[in-house]
Amino acid sequence: MYRDPVQSLEAPSLPSSATAMRPLRVGMIGIGTVGAGTFRVLTRNQALIAGRAGRGIKMVVVCARSLARAMSVVGKDVALTNDPMQVATHPDVDVLVEAAGGTGPARDWVLAAIRAGKHVVTANKALLAEHGNEIFAAARQHGVAVAYEGAVAVSIPIVKALREGLTANRIEWVAGIINGTTNFILSKMRDEGVGFAEALAQAQALGYAEADPTFDIEGLDAAHKISLLAANAFGMPVRFADAQVEGITALQGLDVTCAEQLGYRIKLLGVAKRRQDGDAEGVELRVQPALVPATHLLAHVNGSMNAVMVKGDASGVTMYYGAGAGSEQTASAVIADLVDVARLQGTHAAQRVPHLGFHADAVNDNLAVLPRAAVHTRHYLRVPVHQAQQIEAVGAWLAAQQVPVLRVELACEKAAPNGMGPQVLVLTDAVTQSTVDLAVHALAAHPAVAGPVAALRVEMLEG
Amino acid sequence: MYRDPVQSLEAPSLPSSATAMRPLRVGMIGIGTVGAGTFRVLTRNQALIAGRAGRGIKMVVVCARSLARAMSVVGKDVALTNDPMQVATHPDVDVLVEAAGGTGPARDWVLAAIRAGKHVVTANKALLAEHGNEIFAAARQHGVAVAYEGAVAVSIPIVKALREGLTANRIEWVAGIINGTTNFILSKMRDEGVGFAEALAQAQALGYAEADPTFDIEGLDAAHKISLLAANAFGMPVRFADAQVEGITALQGLDVTCAEQLGYRIKLLGVAKRRQDGDAEGVELRVQPALVPATHLLAHVNGSMNAVMVKGDASGVTMYYGAGAGSEQTASAVIADLVDVARLQGTHAAQRVPHLGFHADAVNDNLAVLPRAAVHTRHYLRVPVHQAQQIEAVGAWLAAQQVPVLRVELACEKAAPNGMGPQVLVLTDAVTQSTVDLAVHALAAHPAVAGPVAALRVEMLEG
Repeated sequence: MYRDPVQSLEAPSLPSSATAMRPLRVGMIGIGTVGAGTFRVLTRNQALIAGRAGRGIKMVVVCARSLARAMSVVGKDVALTNDPMQVATHPDVDVLVEAAGGTGPARDWVLAAIRAGKHVVTANKALLAEHGNEIFAAARQHGVAVAYEGAVAVSIPIVKALREGLTANRIEWVAGIINGTTNFILSKMRDEGVGFAEALAQAQALGYAEADPTFDIEGLDAAHKISLLAANAFGMPVRFADAQVEGITALQGLDVTCAEQLGYRIKLLGVAKRRQDGDAEGVELRVQPALVPATHLLAHVNGSMNAVMVKGDASGVTMYYGAGAGSEQTASAVIADLVDVARLQGTHAAQRVPHLGFHADAVNDNLAVLPRAAVHTRHYLRVPVHQAQQIEAVGAWLAAQQVPVLRVELACEKAAPNGMGPQVLVLTDAVTQSTVDLAVHALAAHPAVAGPVAALRVEMLEG
Repeated sequence: MYRDPVQSLEAPSLPSSATAMRPLRVGMIGIGTVGAGTFRVLTRNQALIAGRAGRGIKMVVVCARSLARAMSVVGKDVALTNDPMQVATHPDVDVLVEAAGGTGPARDWVLAAIRAGKHVVTANKALLAEHGNEIFAAARQHGVAVAYEGAVAVSIPIVKALREGLTANRIEWVAGIINGTTNFILSKMRDEGVGFAEALAQAQALGYAEADPTFDIEGLDAAHKISLLAANAFGMPVRFADAQVEGITALQGLDVTCAEQLGYRIKLLGVAKRRQDGDAEGVELRVQPALVPATHLLAHVNGSMNAVMVKGDASGVTMYYGAGAGSEQTASAVIADLVDVARLQGTHAAQRVPHLGFHADAVNDNLAVLPRAAVHTRHYLRVPVHQAQQIEAVGAWLAAQQVPVLRVELACEKAAPNGMGPQVLVLTDAVTQSTVDLAVHALAAHPAVAGPVAALRVEMLEG
């Protein structure tokens, strides 16, 4: 998608038009939750992804156990096979996406792909926690990328943050809520005062926990992830086998409430901490249910959400928050890895990532900023009135002006003290700014109104 | 730092040893807060940064107004000059770091560097908001990188998250607290019930606001940043001139308390939202003080901290949190950009970013995971006792076992109901696990203790 002429001393020559560049060809093993999500998002956002990558990304072959089910997902334009090795070594494949899960066979497929000169993208944390050192060594030997953003906290680009965003820093520690199932269970235990067994049953009923939840509730899944983060943070091999792992199965509801009394909340934390003090030289690598102060941001990460904090000596503390699981959430990471690979090959090195994220001819010059009048949000209005009972007149008058009023009340003594006169507080539903501007302007002339009206937007963001 | 042989079909040849690769040579204009921080972190973390980048990063020339002051920062091994253009076009410079600030002259230096084939790294949001489109076009023409992670929310890798981490997504909106000065002022207004003028004076006294705070409090700084984020999110040029900008100077303390009454907090938000509905086709691009629900994570971003939320169609909501200003915090971003450039040039393309963040010969195989006994944290203990007054015996006994007790109290009826017997709750200071394990083991034999002791770690994370 890139067309500008290039002059550079160091870089190899650039194709004159990236639109002529052939697409990155992907072979995928597995078309379950992760695989189907990856295909769906790749297809839905095809043009947009190509605009960012500088070339198309095309699924060419998929390996599935049920070819009929696979075809119902990917249609007829993608070759199908039952043989994983055929995908791993397929001559038309540039990148293997391993989306099958498991460790032993996945290791063999990934190593075969690497030996065949394919790049590999995987979200399989168990695979990398157990065989990562071997896989990465093979990839170095064969000069290919092995990307795994989806292996830790899926859609949150935490691997990229550590490997690229925080490279200036001596990392002091990494700590986070990196298992959605256990965070959901712990949130339930706290919010509803139920025990572990009941919270787990609810999580299973709602699809937040698997039928066999062992890997999650025993802390092994979190240990896989924190082992990968520790390696990236501290420059050490993946040391999953040495991690201290404690799950939440033995946690009592009693301790959840007692922690609350003390001003803390219990979260299953993965912690990796570099120790260089008098007592110890090495890395603490551990997963356990731990108390965090109720005022800390991590205490407010609830439900199945994940969050990872990183302390660097220059950056200070940064935090990364988002979904910890899900089909398209994982696909978001898998495809980001594919775009990274697509940008490596064939793109002019110095412009691997285009300056504004999209390649020049994918930037939409016609995409305009909307005028103020078109902005659409909820609103807060504060209307000073002469007498408290005029609240009704204000509410009725706003409704007559097409302002969708959600809530009207008087400011209490604490909020608006010292005889500053009664203040009518209004919350509106979402409405165009032009409607609010007209209503506020007209309110100034309303006989009930005793002074300037304050108007502020209300943002009801998800998250 | 990279030594493995490489076989690849597509990539150019790799130097046999990256240790032989010459360092990336940096010229820098400006040695104020950002420049001095960059030099300090580059020097302090030199080996670690080289291990990640695959080659050294070396400051070779600095332009400063006061050469004497510059020498007091960078010493005698870095060439010094008063002439910015000399640095921008210096034959020994691979990358220009523009750390001078301002717009007009900085534009000229940056364009001169680009025309001379230099890559550019800058944290100057005003420059890019006003002249970014021209600068990026020139960079495309000359095949060089212009990196600016430090221009938005300094140490938080939010530009990287948008340009690389979330490339799979149709971004629906970006919203955030992206000005530390105003967030500090708003936090003060809420926490201490003071008005805008007094909160500003406090911010100035503490160094969180400049002597002339106009750019911050009028929302212009936030508008610079949200314009850059919008361009990256939606594939549009930088449209700072079209942004609707409202600062916090007109905000009344009364509205902060009234918002509180309704369950909201006021934050200065930068918002960029893609609209494709019946009413409008385009982008909302705006900065204003807005109400956010008190339960929302953004409401808990206090003091001078920043946080940016991004909603993608596949990823869902992700959030990025960290310091919004500071010398080394900005340096963290500037150096990350330099590492990105260092990894582009001379590193084998497929392994631009090493698999575990560090190049193979910089990975420390001897960095070991510490045994459980050496782990050092605070602890929570819950000790069931026969009688409530035995709380004193438990406290004294733990102290005698070298457990540093911070707090001892009985669980209240609400926390431990239904006649389950009195529970002594203990919070300890940080202590090695071996000490706690011994104490818990020995407690089992104490005559006051009526059942198994619960022990959990307490994590007092910064942030």
